[in-house]
Amino acid sequence: MAVQTVASSSDSTIDLGPAAALSCRECGHRVPLGPVFACEECFGPLEIAYDFSGHDTEELRRRIEAGPANIWRYAPLLPVPADVADKPNLNPGWTKLVQADHLARELGVTGGLFVKDDSGNPTHSFKDRVVAQALEAARAFGFTTLSCSSTGNLAGAVGAAAARAGLRSCVFIPHDLEQGKVVMAAVYGGELVGIEGNYDDVNRFCSELIGDPAGEGWGFVNVNLRPYYAEGSKTLAYEICEQLGWRLPDQIVIPIASGSQLTKIDKGLKELIELGLVEDKPYKIFGAQAEGCSPVSTAFKGGHDVVRPQKPNTIAKSLAIGNPADGPYVLDIARRTGGAVEDVTDEEIVDAIKLLARTEGIFAETAGGVTVGVTRKLIKNGLLDPTKTTVVLNTGDGLKTLDAVAGTGLSATIRPTLDSFREAGLA
Amino acid sequence: MAVQTVASSSDSTIDLGPAAALSCRECGHRVPLGPVFACEECFGPLEIAYDFSGHDTEELRRRIEAGPANIWRYAPLLPVPADVADKPNLNPGWTKLVQADHLARELGVTGGLFVKDDSGNPTHSFKDRVVAQALEAARAFGFTTLSCSSTGNLAGAVGAAAARAGLRSCVFIPHDLEQGKVVMAAVYGGELVGIEGNYDDVNRFCSELIGDPAGEGWGFVNVNLRPYYAEGSKTLAYEICEQLGWRLPDQIVIPIASGSQLTKIDKGLKELIELGLVEDKPYKIFGAQAEGCSPVSTAFKGGHDVVRPQKPNTIAKSLAIGNPADGPYVLDIARRTGGAVEDVTDEEIVDAIKLLARTEGIFAETAGGVTVGVTRKLIKNGLLDPTKTTVVLNTGDGLKTLDAVAGTGLSATIRPTLDSFREAGLA
Ligand SMILES: [Zn+2]
Ligand SMILES: [Zn+2]
Repeated sequence: MAVQTVASSSDSTIDLGPAAALSCRECGHRVPLGPVFACEECFGPLEIAYDFSGHDTEELRRRIEAGPANIWRYAPLLPVPADVADKPNLNPGWTKLVQADHLARELGVTGGLFVKDDSGNPTHSFKDRVVAQALEAARAFGFTTLSCSSTGNLAGAVGAAAARAGLRSCVFIPHDLEQGKVVMAAVYGGELVGIEGNYDDVNRFCSELIGDPAGEGWGFVNVNLRPYYAEGSKTLAYEICEQLGWRLPDQIVIPIASGSQLTKIDKGLKELIELGLVEDKPYKIFGAQAEGCSPVSTAFKGGHDVVRPQKPNTIAKSLAIGNPADGPYVLDIARRTGGAVEDVTDEEIVDAIKLLARTEGIFAETAGGVTVGVTRKLIKNGLLDPTKTTVVLNTGDGLKTLDAVAGTGLSATIRPTLDSFREAGLA
Repeated sequence: MAVQTVASSSDSTIDLGPAAALSCRECGHRVPLGPVFACEECFGPLEIAYDFSGHDTEELRRRIEAGPANIWRYAPLLPVPADVADKPNLNPGWTKLVQADHLARELGVTGGLFVKDDSGNPTHSFKDRVVAQALEAARAFGFTTLSCSSTGNLAGAVGAAAARAGLRSCVFIPHDLEQGKVVMAAVYGGELVGIEGNYDDVNRFCSELIGDPAGEGWGFVNVNLRPYYAEGSKTLAYEICEQLGWRLPDQIVIPIASGSQLTKIDKGLKELIELGLVEDKPYKIFGAQAEGCSPVSTAFKGGHDVVRPQKPNTIAKSLAIGNPADGPYVLDIARRTGGAVEDVTDEEIVDAIKLLARTEGIFAETAGGVTVGVTRKLIKNGLLDPTKTTVVLNTGDGLKTLDAVAGTGLSATIRPTLDSFREAGLA
């Protein structure tokens, strides 16, 4: 069993499997597992420190392969109790890794092109992976309300996860969000609170609430539970490698919102190497942004270490974070691995959504248009090697961003007769 | 291997695995496998006749369990070639069977309640299962265009399946379909043709096209490929039983559109019994309709053998078939197994969608509201036994019928202050 207790958390009764402590990413200061997210010494971000000792590689591999067809097959590598699969939750993950031969032909990729299609998750975005981790942390800390600030995918993921788990949920959104998005979040029956203000106002309010007695017992998945939440993205790395037959891909193209997903995928790949589950070989990580919100891409191309905030203006709403917290780490990873960060216009995003749908039958959210569009651009400008095995992430579902392709329509309108059919040149 | 040739198809080079011939459901007349759907003797519907001889039960079970996490794990029982999993297709199926304990508590079910959640399919409806079978038949018959008439889910499923397979697609819809549905079908890049007329006109035109040289090489999934297409619903029966640990459920609640899905699930259950994969014991099959399109339910309650057509008027558009082809077979099965057919109002459908979302975090299409609503009604009127293991089908995704729950909204709107939060009574 992977459940461990180590000195730093030995006073605690918190059982989150191999998670041993929280550790500051900047100064390394360690604190026991708890609902905290910033280092008390330097205000740096806290992340999970694991104790993976005592694993036999082949036994671990067999155990994973015999596990359930969801993220809990990797429970020994996640901050969750060993019996996590027995609790009511949405069981996300183990989404399809689609061998995209038609898309490869269009893009000129000869080394193997795969789309990791996370639209197959329960609420149709990768958010189900991260929320599932936050939910286990919330249970471990005795929280009774699951909460978040959101403008889209996260609201539904939290509402659905709380419903299945039998927890209360309370989600905060800007009061003027589009009706469709409100419905997708409200249908799960939790509290859905509109805040008079913009998304920044919503976030500021949530931070206040966490520090107030009124917020006691509340787990904000992307604030006080963020260290646990973020680890969910590691499962994308695990699944991709296992689905490739326990091989690292040569290149991965990952969308950048806060940048957390990209950094955790890198973390996941390194863990697999350290655990001996994959061969230690180089891989390149590429970040993808929309031109209308490209702070990390701009910094990468400018050779800067600092990411300058931008005011987002793009159809890729799920990536529209103008001041990405993990931006500097993303720059480090792209440079260290020999990857790059690139961006595409809204028009290129729409083109890429249609290209992916037409070639592979996958209808992606705008974020998927960003990664496919960036992949095409990276091949053109010679930064991505088309002779190498490449994985492109689609993190959400086109049904959630229908407006992006609203121009798509009928190829012809005819009368219900064969003559009319022939005239239209369809035969 | 399950691949067989028998006398009736021995002249053919068609390899569709264990599918041996087409057989008339009315008079039993057999014809070789081909793109035909009506009996030349009596105009009855043709269906697949299998040769399942030579299977060792335990070896078959092991082979299925070692198969892929999609419908092709059951390839030995489907009209597809043995190498089907190696061909590019959407690989639908193996969707979650959700143990719905919270819903069970609300409905008073004590014998185990499960939701088979087919919103997890690639285009988020059960149609991916049936289209995948039709696609293999189309390949076997050398068709180059995949086609259908549709007003919704089927259009997207055909467009996506053809795109992945590298076939041309041409889908016919009424020209005045809502823009959202047009986009969901058009995004896959195939031909999408609007027909000036209603859905009946579209169907009539498609039948004409099949008989015309202009339609040569065209596979209409739900017309000339219908015998193959329909078999896809058997996989729901297979998956439910395997996911229950190779056990038959006591009761299944299935939505009725044409009635084909219900009859094929019954066929699948009987096959599992015959093959020895599950214990032979009684099970009850329940059909679910919307009150606004309840021809089968009306016939069932009236004690009739004949189904009188109705003009549909319900929010459950995916079930709105007023003259269901398999209606009489559904009546037979419900009566033979000791089940029933019941219907619910549009208001009850919406309530049931919200109930399922609130209790289990599953956002169902209107058809899922129909089955959950009917389950509740059947328990109330004593026709469904709450002490028995019950499976309820959700065949589609709530994102596709957002309008049904459009009234769902914010529980409160507040200013971004703790005072405003407290005033709203949310603490
Ligand atoms: Zn620190
Ligand atoms: Zn006949």
